[in-house]
Amino acid sequence: MVEYVRVYVDELRRFTSECFMKCGVPKGDADIIADHLVLANLRGVDSHGVIRIPVYIEGIKKGYVKSFSESRIIKESMATVLIDGGGGLGIPIATKATDLAIEKCRSVGLAAVGVRNLGHVGMLAYYTLKIAKNNLIGLVTANGPAIVVPWGGIEPIFGANPMSIAFPTSSRPIVIDMATSAMAHFKILLAALKNEKIPEGVALTKDGKPTTDPREAQLLLPFGGYKGYAIALTIEVLSSILIGGQLSKYIVLHGSTQGGFFTLAIDPTVFREYSEYLKDIDTLIKFIKSCKPAQGFNEVLLPGELEDKTFEERLRKGIPIDINTWKMLTEVAKELNIESPKTL
Amino acid sequence: MVEYVRVYVDELRRFTSECFMKCGVPKGDADIIADHLVLANLRGVDSHGVIRIPVYIEGIKKGYVKSFSESRIIKESMATVLIDGGGGLGIPIATKATDLAIEKCRSVGLAAVGVRNLGHVGMLAYYTLKIAKNNLIGLVTANGPAIVVPWGGIEPIFGANPMSIAFPTSSRPIVIDMATSAMAHFKILLAALKNEKIPEGVALTKDGKPTTDPREAQLLLPFGGYKGYAIALTIEVLSSILIGGQLSKYIVLHGSTQGGFFTLAIDPTVFREYSEYLKDIDTLIKFIKSCKPAQGFNEVLLPGELEDKTFEERLRKGIPIDINTWKMLTEVAKELNIESPKTL
Repeated sequence: MVEYVRVYVDELRRFTSECFMKCGVPKGDADIIADHLVLANLRGVDSHGVIRIPVYIEGIKKGYVKSFSESRIIKESMATVLIDGGGGLGIPIATKATDLAIEKCRSVGLAAVGVRNLGHVGMLAYYTLKIAKNNLIGLVTANGPAIVVPWGGIEPIFGANPMSIAFPTSSRPIVIDMATSAMAHFKILLAALKNEKIPEGVALTKDGKPTTDPREAQLLLPFGGYKGYAIALTIEVLSSILIGGQLSKYIVLHGSTQGGFFTLAIDPTVFREYSEYLKDIDTLIKFIKSCKPAQGFNEVLLPGELEDKTFEERLRKGIPIDINTWKMLTEVAKELNIESPKTL
Repeated sequence: MVEYVRVYVDELRRFTSECFMKCGVPKGDADIIADHLVLANLRGVDSHGVIRIPVYIEGIKKGYVKSFSESRIIKESMATVLIDGGGGLGIPIATKATDLAIEKCRSVGLAAVGVRNLGHVGMLAYYTLKIAKNNLIGLVTANGPAIVVPWGGIEPIFGANPMSIAFPTSSRPIVIDMATSAMAHFKILLAALKNEKIPEGVALTKDGKPTTDPREAQLLLPFGGYKGYAIALTIEVLSSILIGGQLSKYIVLHGSTQGGFFTLAIDPTVFREYSEYLKDIDTLIKFIKSCKPAQGFNEVLLPGELEDKTFEERLRKGIPIDINTWKMLTEVAKELNIESPKTL
């Protein structure tokens, strides 16, 4: 039985921003981080929500990330930008990089922006949603500390290496956001806390033996066998090798660290009238939503559909914070001498 | 026990080209198709090799594809091109589109080319290898006749929707080439011929019930569960909706048909010195190849590594053609009044 405290959305944003400002983060950046983490909670992606506040603060204290740094453009061409993040907190830098990708894409029709040397960038859907809300298709990837083995191997080479893709539609964008590991690292930690087993084919012990015990799980398998391995490898190349970010093997294992951040934006109007694009993607959505469900399924879901529903609900009812996270947050509040978020 | 005939590489190329010329395909295009199909056989991807000759010829006869058509550029911007293939055989058109993507990418650093209205484009690695040999990163996708269900559904919405990605390295490119279905359609047909079962979790009967009997398998599942479904959906959007190609649901089910073809090229030098890129990708390769293998594996393979080995071997020893395919080819030879390829 997990207990929850329900918190006002605006209050959680105010609290998050104040936390980071107290740690030396400029107001503009702190507001971006608050907007980001609270959006993750609103979408039900609690692993990337305010639970990260103490993690990022620890990262600052331990010197893994800087509370403030001047990120700078180190290479630029018509359709591309390369940014050095200066080792700063990842979310504000990645947000600016995404804005640049949108701007470039608007003028060229196609744009790619890479950022090396930055902290954890959070929930990738934050960036692709931003791109999709500008009527562009967005792809975002990042690599992280090595915990995933290649197919057929038992040493960690890749991070959980997530990717997000968003497609604008005539209503909500379709939003894919997924790790390329078979299971999210966070879910394994959660299973350990709850004394539950994890499925077979998801994780290995540190000696490379298959395990269903989350406390023994030290290595993760890629999702989808050798095909998922190929996708994890692709994300490794785009997020680190292509843009000079750290290889996953070299990244410090901490919740505040990241390798590189890569984003690509495509303007559908370089190929078609936007209305034609919309008509066809709406048709695809109709096919999917009217598809007869398999046994055990009530309906066929679009990627991101569940998160959209959670978003609507939490926007109305406030954000539930589990009691353990709530305790951590109130401790942070006390330590930094700021007011805890008001509960409903 | 499968019997083989071993054929000279040049002879197979000569034969393939003559087949298509006899069907009204211009010599230049016929040579491209021959180069393509024989490369597939050389790489061991026999499902996309000369076995397709009678399939493509049938497609021409039935009017699914044209032996010759003027493809034309219908929209162009600095970094992008949209081509209407005029309903012609897919391989020569997709090859020209790839050349255009390479050319654009060389000048802009990033390029995307889409082709709608064309026949089957064959083995996607053919195109990404071309891009990678120009020291560029290549991504290629295509959608095909609907045979894959969305995750949780039992109606076909996506094609096998393959994707290929190639990364240049200081030796052979790393080449990913995979369908987003859990199993290749061709392998299921093969299992039926051999009276073998197919694995669980790969296919459904036409009523949506799980089956391991290849003769009952009418629908394919996406690879890797809901994550693979998300990738299949992405390929559907890029290959059809973005560029105005046919949705998979609307494509005639035949081995000569295709929806749309999408290619993206990235020049690493817009971000880094090429030598720096090479150094890092070689390091990743070293990590992967020196990774301790799991039980049951002799070594960890790079995507495309097996195909590269087969290529070397077949280049030396000639191409083995299984006896059923050989019979089909000799029938084609007789029908078109051309000489069968010389065997070793």
